Amino acid sequence: MSSVCDIHDLEQLARRRVPKMFFDYADSGSWSESTYRANETDFDLIKLRQRVAVDMTNRSLKTTLVGQEASMPVALAPVGLTGMQHADGEILAARAAAEWGVPFTLSTMSICSIEAVAEATGKPFWFQLYVMRDRGFINALIDRAKAAGCSALVVTLDLQVLGQRHKDVRNGLSAPPKFTPKHVWQMATRPGWCLGMLGTKNRTFGNIVGHAKGVDDLGSLSAWTAEQFDPTLNWKDIEWIKERWGGPVILKGILDTEDARLAVETGADAIIVSNHGGRQLDGAPSSISVLPEIVDAVGDKIEVMMDGGIRSGQDVLKALCLGARGVMIGRAFVYGLGAMGQPGVKLALDIIGKELDTTMALCGERQVTDLSRMNLYHSSQDQRG
Amino acid sequence: MSSVCDIHDLEQLARRRVPKMFFDYADSGSWSESTYRANETDFDLIKLRQRVAVDMTNRSLKTTLVGQEASMPVALAPVGLTGMQHADGEILAARAAAEWGVPFTLSTMSICSIEAVAEATGKPFWFQLYVMRDRGFINALIDRAKAAGCSALVVTLDLQVLGQRHKDVRNGLSAPPKFTPKHVWQMATRPGWCLGMLGTKNRTFGNIVGHAKGVDDLGSLSAWTAEQFDPTLNWKDIEWIKERWGGPVILKGILDTEDARLAVETGADAIIVSNHGGRQLDGAPSSISVLPEIVDAVGDKIEVMMDGGIRSGQDVLKALCLGARGVMIGRAFVYGLGAMGQPGVKLALDIIGKELDTTMALCGERQVTDLSRMNLYHSSQDQRG
Amino acid sequence: MSSVCDIHDLEQLARRRVPKMFFDYADSGSWSESTYRANETDFDLIKLRQRVAVDMTNRSLKTTLVGQEASMPVALAPVGLTGMQHADGEILAARAAAEWGVPFTLSTMSICSIEAVAEATGKPFWFQLYVMRDRGFINALIDRAKAAGCSALVVTLDLQVLGQRHKDVRNGLSAPPKFTPKHVWQMATRPGWCLGMLGTKNRTFGNIVGHAKGVDDLGSLSAWTAEQFDPTLNWKDIEWIKERWGGPVILKGILDTEDARLAVETGADAIIVSNHGGRQLDGAPSSISVLPEIVDAVGDKIEVMMDGGIRSGQDVLKALCLGARGVMIGRAFVYGLGAMGQPGVKLALDIIGKELDTTMALCGERQVTDLSRMNLYHSSQDQRG
Amino acid sequence: MSSVCDIHDLEQLARRRVPKMFFDYADSGSWSESTYRANETDFDLIKLRQRVAVDMTNRSLKTTLVGQEASMPVALAPVGLTGMQHADGEILAARAAAEWGVPFTLSTMSICSIEAVAEATGKPFWFQLYVMRDRGFINALIDRAKAAGCSALVVTLDLQVLGQRHKDVRNGLSAPPKFTPKHVWQMATRPGWCLGMLGTKNRTFGNIVGHAKGVDDLGSLSAWTAEQFDPTLNWKDIEWIKERWGGPVILKGILDTEDARLAVETGADAIIVSNHGGRQLDGAPSSISVLPEIVDAVGDKIEVMMDGGIRSGQDVLKALCLGARGVMIGRAFVYGLGAMGQPGVKLALDIIGKELDTTMALCGERQVTDLSRMNLYHSSQDQRG
Repeated sequence: MSSVCDIHDLEQLARRRVPKMFFDYADSGSWSESTYRANETDFDLIKLRQRVAVDMTNRSLKTTLVGQEASMPVALAPVGLTGMQHADGEILAARAAAEWGVPFTLSTMSICSIEAVAEATGKPFWFQLYVMRDRGFINALIDRAKAAGCSALVVTLDLQVLGQRHKDVRNGLSAPPKFTPKHVWQMATRPGWCLGMLGTKNRTFGNIVGHAKGVDDLGSLSAWTAEQFDPTLNWKDIEWIKERWGGPVILKGILDTEDARLAVETGADAIIVSNHGGRQLDGAPSSISVLPEIVDAVGDKIEVMMDGGIRSGQDVLKALCLGARGVMIGRAFVYGLGAMGQPGVKLALDIIGKELDTTMALCGERQVTDLSRMNLYHSSQDQRG
Repeated sequence: MSSVCDIHDLEQLARRRVPKMFFDYADSGSWSESTYRANETDFDLIKLRQRVAVDMTNRSLKTTLVGQEASMPVALAPVGLTGMQHADGEILAARAAAEWGVPFTLSTMSICSIEAVAEATGKPFWFQLYVMRDRGFINALIDRAKAAGCSALVVTLDLQVLGQRHKDVRNGLSAPPKFTPKHVWQMATRPGWCLGMLGTKNRTFGNIVGHAKGVDDLGSLSAWTAEQFDPTLNWKDIEWIKERWGGPVILKGILDTEDARLAVETGADAIIVSNHGGRQLDGAPSSISVLPEIVDAVGDKIEVMMDGGIRSGQDVLKALCLGARGVMIGRAFVYGLGAMGQPGVKLALDIIGKELDTTMALCGERQVTDLSRMNLYHSSQDQRG
Repeated sequence: MSSVCDIHDLEQLARRRVPKMFFDYADSGSWSESTYRANETDFDLIKLRQRVAVDMTNRSLKTTLVGQEASMPVALAPVGLTGMQHADGEILAARAAAEWGVPFTLSTMSICSIEAVAEATGKPFWFQLYVMRDRGFINALIDRAKAAGCSALVVTLDLQVLGQRHKDVRNGLSAPPKFTPKHVWQMATRPGWCLGMLGTKNRTFGNIVGHAKGVDDLGSLSAWTAEQFDPTLNWKDIEWIKERWGGPVILKGILDTEDARLAVETGADAIIVSNHGGRQLDGAPSSISVLPEIVDAVGDKIEVMMDGGIRSGQDVLKALCLGARGVMIGRAFVYGLGAMGQPGVKLALDIIGKELDTTMALCGERQVTDLSRMNLYHSSQDQRG
Repeated sequence: MSSVCDIHDLEQLARRRVPKMFFDYADSGSWSESTYRANETDFDLIKLRQRVAVDMTNRSLKTTLVGQEASMPVALAPVGLTGMQHADGEILAARAAAEWGVPFTLSTMSICSIEAVAEATGKPFWFQLYVMRDRGFINALIDRAKAAGCSALVVTLDLQVLGQRHKDVRNGLSAPPKFTPKHVWQMATRPGWCLGMLGTKNRTFGNIVGHAKGVDDLGSLSAWTAEQFDPTLNWKDIEWIKERWGGPVILKGILDTEDARLAVETGADAIIVSNHGGRQLDGAPSSISVLPEIVDAVGDKIEVMMDGGIRSGQDVLKALCLGARGVMIGRAFVYGLGAMGQPGVKLALDIIGKELDTTMALCGERQVTDLSRMNLYHSSQDQRG
């Protein structure tokens, strides 16, 4: 553990501990994965301004996200199947987030249910909502999240149709799932993971099975899911969701300035610039590359967060400099979870927090909320352009 | 077959089933293959605009090409030696195209003859014409295509002299062909392919041997072909071809705005922006990179199609956004054919169709004919430039 | 030795002679090492103007640095732990520099003490100062450097907080250091190095142990160091340092035009454009890429030197053309030292000097001080831009 | 031989037939070889305009170079040690060039002497002159070239000091040469080459040994050469050389527009844009990248040729389109020579000639002298820029 220097080290550890089909599920993008890769590599194009001889004492990473205090401007993104990366995955991740003082977001497609996470964590968390055809089920989900004390609702907009992820197809993880000898082998070679799974009851989609109409087992689940993502979802749906929910609403999956303007009109509290981690529209630009123009368009009217490609505190800092109020990390915490459970999620947050803090200091800043485009380097040649 | 996710998977299967000399024939460009590669890689430079919260129901890929209905804006390109990728290759591909409702184009240099394809398919297809020195033979070809009920004539303009393909030279596939122990070995290791060939009579150039003057066997064919591509071909030839044919004429091989304007003056019905799949002028720009300026020049006067580098529905969509009425796929269907015959061609079309449909939805569009440059992403920095 | 053509050859030799933990210490950057790599690769983007038919006799590399004569515009950079690359490393490097007639800079974090180097060399050298929390210790260091006849004080500004170098963490070289069987093995396989170490008394930080309050051994050193880099360091500190020192002051670690202007106001004699060899702010631009704008901002008011990425005389020449008065080489001489001790440092200087001289001639110049941006090539297209 | 498709195939054959030290001598650039590589790769950045439906009969590659007829606009460049690539190398190459109808240029540093080549070939060739300190020797060389009927004098300007080629240093081929067991081994494994060498008397520098003062054997040669390249060479020297010679003078090694203008003033007949094949100023731009601006500066006053990086007829065509009157090929013919002697040089010319002819046709041109920038493709976006 002393040799874990960065998130990529956690990724390697997770690869060795999590059955291939579930590791691949996290570690994949749609089709050619070009957007998935650009999410990471486009951060490398952004350069930082080094400043020196500035008193760097009393630094702080504290901020607020939709009015709620956070120890740093980082939230845990909703990730489907988190509970398959490690037994009770959502619970462990939520606990680590609470320990650090940053928001955890529970996915609709989680293994542990809203109620299980709420009970085990004892702290408020955010709930992510997929809008499905069965509006009764959606209403019930919203009510359950409210009852569980969730502090914000993250509505995902970019999954009306499903982008194809080749790795999932090859691993038989597309709907309906097929269980083959290959899977037995993948699990048999990961005894630690299996042992954990034997010790928990959280082994299927906790928010859906037994809650959605007619979904009682894995078979009915896969049939139900395959046709539930709702292609008719549109801006008007946000209104009734917002009204039923009553609390802070965050719209996730905005990648276009036009959509950002429409999102503002819904009265939402924040948007998340996102391409679903490169898992939906392959060929879309990276999140970080579109962030500045979206901030320019609506940054004064709504909180703008982003996700996609964050693997270090330097990445977080670059997003903040470009106007993000905060970022969401998905794979970064999932690798930590797969590698070593709750302490792994905490370690991922420790790594990113320390990188962010040191990098901020070397940029000559002391308050994370003071970061701006002035902290980025543009060559004098670029500035002429 | 369930693990075939994309066209590249079909390519790998074809590589294992088709004798090397014929697989290489399809999988090659001229000289350094720089244009061949650019045809594919230049698609990656084009970014798509993701839109969300748009009602995406009732989507349609239907369009018309030279006035004829097509289930999607994709036609099968004329590919020489298609019948060597799989026994009766042209017949199988034509059947799959008819099944899908998209045009199939038969090459002059096909193995199965016009008549054989017409009889076996029972549906109209397009015929591709190489203009050769023997004008009597050309006239006869036109008449045969007419008699067979072909619904469009695709005249290829970019093969007056032959670009050198090193792989063909090394495989002894240049004229005159040489049959060596290496070829025996290549075929012996592909028993499925051989068995198919034994079961068909279509084993030489069906449109030429026995039809062109003095061409009765492989020996006379190779002598005849080597000197038949006509370097004097010019725009005036299009006039008499058009007149003799009487139906829709499509000019293939336009890569320059000047030539596009001259093509319009011939009264042709469509042009195909093409560099012959990177098999002729190595060093020419990719097809997709010149498409926009050609559309700007003549797009309001003639239907503009394109080919070269299409390996996915995302590629199709990008070409359509840049103004193409439709695209031609060559290697994409040939890989499917080599991999598994008629079902493989259908699978290639299924893959591309599904990719096109899902991608269109994620771009927030419902009608393939509504796609435009507005669906492409340009960073605000580019727009300033 | 006759086959050593360039600095990279010396690097390979050093890799085989120096225990991995110490070789890695030199051969590393912080976090993803992107700035570390850019320091080298950005030199490749600069093109030289070849001139011919110019009388190239009587060439000279001589110049002055902070008013002191130098045989060429190259100084040896301060490098921590130099004495771990080779026994008595600082002494050997200082002797080679004196032999060549170029400045050697002793690091605060050196193994051999100021006094030991002064005694063994008998020539003035530069002393590099880290500003630490214990101001009494700093005052003592300044006084010791003065007493030892040091001819310039290089104050490092970019190490108020420490960038993380993964290789050091993995090698257990971060504070507090851990000594493990891996280290025993690394040393046992480098017998020449070990033999040298047994023959010297210089085996710990000579300027600190026994000099700083309460630092008597390695244990107390590591505890002391970990908290000594001073985050409060600011421009006002330069004033009292300058006053106490009384001689030429060089400020190291400037990477921003704003900081360059502030540095001028301190009355310093020179600045060194530097990102600490890519070891601090990962994501900062390369030194060579920011040099021109800093020269434009303050080049007429102060001597501007640079370091970072220099591996050849061509690199030196490019920096001079862009306005540097001189450059510092770090790894380039450290590789020579690790490879073969004092003769290796001399060989590194010989290589760079000869490369610089020949390259200058091929650019049509005879005096190193005449080099300017006119000796760089910009395509006519760039000039239009 | 039938499988030799391009110049790279000849390169591979030569690598297997020529002792490493001599193959490496040809296949190397100075220092990091960045300019050597850019010479080739920069050609890939240039795109060609494909034109169709143009009558392409009656094509011709014929041109004149300094007023002399040439079957194609290609000359064989002066290459030192050509006679070490193959026994009697200069004679064989000169014969192949004469057979093809293109100029051959004999290097001052050739193995076969001026007289030996003249006698064996019976056709005029060009002579390349290195200006050395011993002006009496230079005068004698000029007189000998005149007496041998040489038809043009190529004066090399870019070798006043020598760029370092690491491969030569490592192979012991730098002055003075060292003969080691490694060399015996390199030759023993190339029996065909050795047999040839045993059958010829041309085994040392034919123009120098026995002709220059005091140079009687290899020992005195190496001592003499090492100090003979003249750093004082300047434009005034061209005047007396031109006067003594009396015939066409071509200045080789121009890479800068300023130098091109100065070259015009000397009254020379042609210049060759060259960076000595990337063997001198590493870091200089590629030849092809500076060609256009030099043509713009002096193209109307003097014939502009170029060399460096030509490996195909496509490369030749690109240089011609950018304004070169002709090109010189060095390595391209040397590989052919090393691979198979005189027929190999002829094959290299055949390959390049055929590539040039076919490519010209596909660009819609019939006369090599009609090629212009109009035959190059610039995207409409570039044109806006």
